[in-house]
Amino acid sequence: MTAHEWAKTLQVGDGFRLADVDPRSTPGYDGSKADGARALESGLDELNHLQERLFAESRVGVAKDSVLLILQAMDSAGKGGIVRHVVGGVDPQGVALTAFKAPTAEELAHDFLWRVTPRLPEPGFIGVFDRSHYEDVLIGRVRSLAPADEIERRYDAINTFEAEAAASGIRIIKVMLHISPDEQKARLMERLERPDKHWKYNPGDVDERLLWDDYMAAYQTVFDRTSTAAAPWHVIPADRKWYARLAVQELLLDALQGIDPQWPAAEFDVEAEKKRLAAS
Amino acid sequence: MTAHEWAKTLQVGDGFRLADVDPRSTPGYDGSKADGARALESGLDELNHLQERLFAESRVGVAKDSVLLILQAMDSAGKGGIVRHVVGGVDPQGVALTAFKAPTAEELAHDFLWRVTPRLPEPGFIGVFDRSHYEDVLIGRVRSLAPADEIERRYDAINTFEAEAAASGIRIIKVMLHISPDEQKARLMERLERPDKHWKYNPGDVDERLLWDDYMAAYQTVFDRTSTAAAPWHVIPADRKWYARLAVQELLLDALQGIDPQWPAAEFDVEAEKKRLAAS
Repeated sequence: MTAHEWAKTLQVGDGFRLADVDPRSTPGYDGSKADGARALESGLDELNHLQERLFAESRVGVAKDSVLLILQAMDSAGKGGIVRHVVGGVDPQGVALTAFKAPTAEELAHDFLWRVTPRLPEPGFIGVFDRSHYEDVLIGRVRSLAPADEIERRYDAINTFEAEAAASGIRIIKVMLHISPDEQKARLMERLERPDKHWKYNPGDVDERLLWDDYMAAYQTVFDRTSTAAAPWHVIPADRKWYARLAVQELLLDALQGIDPQWPAAEFDVEAEKKRLAAS
Repeated sequence: MTAHEWAKTLQVGDGFRLADVDPRSTPGYDGSKADGARALESGLDELNHLQERLFAESRVGVAKDSVLLILQAMDSAGKGGIVRHVVGGVDPQGVALTAFKAPTAEELAHDFLWRVTPRLPEPGFIGVFDRSHYEDVLIGRVRSLAPADEIERRYDAINTFEAEAAASGIRIIKVMLHISPDEQKARLMERLERPDKHWKYNPGDVDERLLWDDYMAAYQTVFDRTSTAAAPWHVIPADRKWYARLAVQELLLDALQGIDPQWPAAEFDVEAEKKRLAAS
């Protein structure tokens, strides 16, 4: 399966229902866990090759495009592992990572997109959002953190915002890592059982877990309202970490292949510079 | 040699003379290139282990310390390779990288430290400066980009700034990668000979190269004036890339070992949470 076929397979289209996605499934991939790990490793070379050319374009000022990977998920679904094992395989000089936390008082005083705009990647970069403006229509909706009409307004605001970002040259990859409640329970229990994992556990995680159905409904609304041609959503079954990592890598490869960055031509006289350097 | 011994070996002390350092030497290390590559690989595990604990402390709000690696060098000395192969081995979630470029008009309108302060790493993070405020006393001095008395003022300003940062919990590692003019010539020539490296070449690199002795004098002044107990300089011979990478990794290990981060204790009742999770 090509990277583009991966993207098409995982993309949220008309009539998509989250409830129909099995979190343990591995859509489009019939290899084993070991196969998946090998594929991840070998895909890294191409990812690095493409990323370096994109970055090269930015350094000489001819890059127009960038990539933005937006990661959303319930707790313990594996966002951190994606950042570490997929994004972490790329030269950090070309990556701009933002982990969005609960908004500060200053951020809350502004429109919900105010803190997001400055974090959009510049040309030549791979931007990564670990959580994003979608929190404002997910926990924002489930926990009624804003009035209902304000939440309602945000879907269109997001679409306008993302369409403009896409028109400016940002390839937006929106990913929801989809785990099952059982798998989450097992992962949270492991965090409780291992003292070296206690720091990853937050009692609030169970509070959110108790609202699982509300969150799934909020995600379904997000997909219905904000999966656009300019910025489609992808739902990645995430009970198998190796599959989710491979799938995200393929989505990055698809975006970069679509950009098709090239080594920039020299804007100086190469032979003249060789002589000048040799004489120096 | 322990990481701490590496740091002591490479540290700029009283009476240090840059002219006495052989860029092809490998101080304190008598292994081969292959040995060095293996040592780099095996050191990565400890680096990751320490970094994860430091990051864990930050996530539960008990981290007080951070690390700041400041990289300075002549062009092509290998800063990019350090970022990619040493820093790139660490979880990107715990790294804050800033590549300082020529200052913008807005930055120039402010004090030279104005753009630097917001980039200091928060507790729990490894900050990396690819170039830094030292440009303002290096190219700033060599090219007379500011009046002489302003340049003169900056050394003390840097010492005060860094001492405050160190007192706030930032372990500052200042590194100059020291290459020879011959090695630089070879590396720049390779960039001219390979079309996929043209983007890394800038005719301005040769202009700076022609001022080599002035730059070395400016570095010597930097070492004389700003190698302090709170923020000592380290000069790393860099004609052998593998040695420079290994040395920087050891300096990072030394700083992290000095912090000695621990897995944070749970601030919740673990057994009560297990019951609550099981029932959810």
